[in-house]
Amino acid sequence: MSNHAHHHGHSHSHTEEHNKFSYMIRDAVIGLSDGLTVPFALAAGLSGATDSTAIIVTAGIAEIAAGAIAMGLGGYMAARTEVDQYHSERKREMLEIENVPHIEEKEVTDILEAYGVPHDHALLVTAALKKDPERWVDFMMRFELGLEKPNPSELLHTPLTIGLSYVIGGLIPLLPYILYDSAQSALPISVVTTLLALAIFGALKGAFTGIDRIKSALQTTLIGGLAASVAYAVAKMLG
Amino acid sequence: MSNHAHHHGHSHSHTEEHNKFSYMIRDAVIGLSDGLTVPFALAAGLSGATDSTAIIVTAGIAEIAAGAIAMGLGGYMAARTEVDQYHSERKREMLEIENVPHIEEKEVTDILEAYGVPHDHALLVTAALKKDPERWVDFMMRFELGLEKPNPSELLHTPLTIGLSYVIGGLIPLLPYILYDSAQSALPISVVTTLLALAIFGALKGAFTGIDRIKSALQTTLIGGLAASVAYAVAKMLG
Repeated sequence: MSNHAHHHGHSHSHTEEHNKFSYMIRDAVIGLSDGLTVPFALAAGLSGATDSTAIIVTAGIAEIAAGAIAMGLGGYMAARTEVDQYHSERKREMLEIENVPHIEEKEVTDILEAYGVPHDHALLVTAALKKDPERWVDFMMRFELGLEKPNPSELLHTPLTIGLSYVIGGLIPLLPYILYDSAQSALPISVVTTLLALAIFGALKGAFTGIDRIKSALQTTLIGGLAASVAYAVAKMLG
Repeated sequence: MSNHAHHHGHSHSHTEEHNKFSYMIRDAVIGLSDGLTVPFALAAGLSGATDSTAIIVTAGIAEIAAGAIAMGLGGYMAARTEVDQYHSERKREMLEIENVPHIEEKEVTDILEAYGVPHDHALLVTAALKKDPERWVDFMMRFELGLEKPNPSELLHTPLTIGLSYVIGGLIPLLPYILYDSAQSALPISVVTTLLALAIFGALKGAFTGIDRIKSALQTTLIGGLAASVAYAVAKMLG
């Protein structure tokens, strides 16, 4: 039960801590999975076209900067849109309750009757909701529209966590190119290090999301490896 | 009302078409926003370090290939995880209903009482749910856990839409570098073309998500422009 404790609302502060942690994990997973994959594949790809690590490091760091900003601000926009949409839907739902209460009442009974609740009993629930429009709106948001109240502190945390994770993930495959002069020497070290990092990341991700760790490790490693192989082949063809 | 018609279930086939279209828009937005931003910023960044369009085109195409695969397969994994988690949560919820029905009954009454439904009336709903365990589980999935039944056809559509949108988005900023020999000639054309594409994309995205179009256009243009400027500055410093 513990990993859906936040739906019960028994302990509010525990709930919020739990949510914050889940969001942070989710954001770190988004940043790391792309950070470990795309700069890795780009550097491997460029190794197929040039032996100069200088140009690979420049391209890699430019990609990391661009990717971290694009993904971080993209995460901010997604969180922002979620907050805005929640409030605009809530406003509309409130107007509907005020202007066409009979339609909204029917929506409540329809929802409950779909689960086998008899019409007369569903009407009792409607009667209770009608006493408090604020709670009625909250009920419609959750049970009609399936929308959870978004947490505004995510607007700051989400872009920072995604951006930072992308930078950390992206520096791992790039490090061998920074340390070596020849791309042909750096490439195998980058491949081994990054595939290992992808496997560890996949296993940890599996542990947090409740997916089998070995399966999850294989998936992340395969995606990274496939992206890098295709990038290498494409660049070799062009370079 | 029409843009949350899929929550009412009046017309099943209309609902499914509507959902498919929303998913496609969401996936195209994910692919296009990163595709228009990251390869654009990378090409701009490399223009700060080299005048050879050959290396920029190679890096750009390697990035597009890597990004499309990483994002497409990432989208597949996310959809896969959603399907798996839904089924494993449903199985657990069914076990809880079979083994600790009194706890689950209390969860139903707690949910309804939180919206002001009197205990006695909440018990009537519980009594109705108890008659059909399948519907009871569906009720808990939706109203306790807030989970929607995922659509398995997304497993194929999501990666294809994201990947293809990333490729289309990424080729727009790269085209001037393919057509010109000098990066210094290609850069300003790429900047103008891509910022325009970002503005159009932002306005369309705003129209689909119900956000103000001008605000949305400014946001996407700003993110792309910022990412490209930072990548340019970083590459100039290193190159």
